Amino acid sequence: MYTLYYMPGAASLVVHWLLLEIGAPHELRLVDGAAGQQKSPEYLKLNPNGVVPVMLVEGRPVYEAAALALLLAERHPAARLAPAVGTLARVQYLQWMLHLANTLQPAYRAWFYPDEPAGADAILAVQDRARIRIEAAWDRIDAHLAAHGPWLAGDGPSAVDFHAGMLARWSRAMPRPATEWPAVARFVAALKARPSFAELNRREGLTDWL
Amino acid sequence: MYTLYYMPGAASLVVHWLLLEIGAPHELRLVDGAAGQQKSPEYLKLNPNGVVPVMLVEGRPVYEAAALALLLAERHPAARLAPAVGTLARVQYLQWMLHLANTLQPAYRAWFYPDEPAGADAILAVQDRARIRIEAAWDRIDAHLAAHGPWLAGDGPSAVDFHAGMLARWSRAMPRPATEWPAVARFVAALKARPSFAELNRREGLTDWL
Repeated sequence: MYTLYYMPGAASLVVHWLLLEIGAPHELRLVDGAAGQQKSPEYLKLNPNGVVPVMLVEGRPVYEAAALALLLAERHPAARLAPAVGTLARVQYLQWMLHLANTLQPAYRAWFYPDEPAGADAILAVQDRARIRIEAAWDRIDAHLAAHGPWLAGDGPSAVDFHAGMLARWSRAMPRPATEWPAVARFVAALKARPSFAELNRREGLTDWL
Repeated sequence: MYTLYYMPGAASLVVHWLLLEIGAPHELRLVDGAAGQQKSPEYLKLNPNGVVPVMLVEGRPVYEAAALALLLAERHPAARLAPAVGTLARVQYLQWMLHLANTLQPAYRAWFYPDEPAGADAILAVQDRARIRIEAAWDRIDAHLAAHGPWLAGDGPSAVDFHAGMLARWSRAMPRPATEWPAVARFVAALKARPSFAELNRREGLTDWL
């Protein structure tokens, strides 16, 4: 049993999506972002970073969305959400998971919270640079999918694809949404066609980017 | 056989260190950072991000230091550098590896390349904030080690410990080096006592923080 603390559409979304793909029993706990619940003393005991997600795994709190994605994939091998150790697909899987987590995800953080890197005076400069980094990442992802797709690693969808799908969603209102890259657009369409995607949106109450 | 492209003391260091811990056959290729070799067309073909490391695995280039650390640990199980799948230690291992990779490592990037997030005018503001994030991360790591140490995950050293050791090294000339936290200081001393550490420094030509 897992208990996922989530905010609709936030970084918890990939974990929620994978729980649905796996069919793993779980409970959801909505975190009230408008009320700042992710900064409350109770929440900070679970995740001292004050962000979602955190998930209880055998009763113990675990944070970092990409770590939870890797963890769910390896704990539920029947769902085939991770390539086997020792394969070339595995190499791609790990490289792209880490690349998304430590390059693209921080760039989105800078785009959506542009006061964080250098204060209020630098908001426009931060967003300009974040946008360049985000678009450069989609350039590389698009090139990889065009050459090796339709999935990022191996012959079927793996946890890293759902993580990339979440990050593509985050760009939907940006000057250049990820779906403007052709191979990414095909990739997103394939992810959206999965039954888990409609269920995910219904459960999180999301009504755009369907 | 692995071929690691490295710059002394850079993010390639953890990969080099793990190759020595494992005793895996490998070749080293020095990247001339002063000459900007990491931005050359030849290098960008291997790693389009223009940073080290990149490592050839079965002849194919793979980047992202933390991904390479996870990969080496799982490809060489006899070295016992990763907790077994399904254990509580494994959960900690993945959480901390991702946390180091996507929180602490980008904060160091901002500290060492403070013009990147918002341009030359914001350098001091960027460094102030990066320092706060870096010190907050060491607060959390120190608390975890004090409660659950001497290692980050499980009873023996794993790949995530060597990654944390590299990041501790990066703080050596900062206002508050990581070794000023007591549990981190004990942890670093245990890492430095390993024979691989002296060999690593000798091979990379590093003469401080021994």
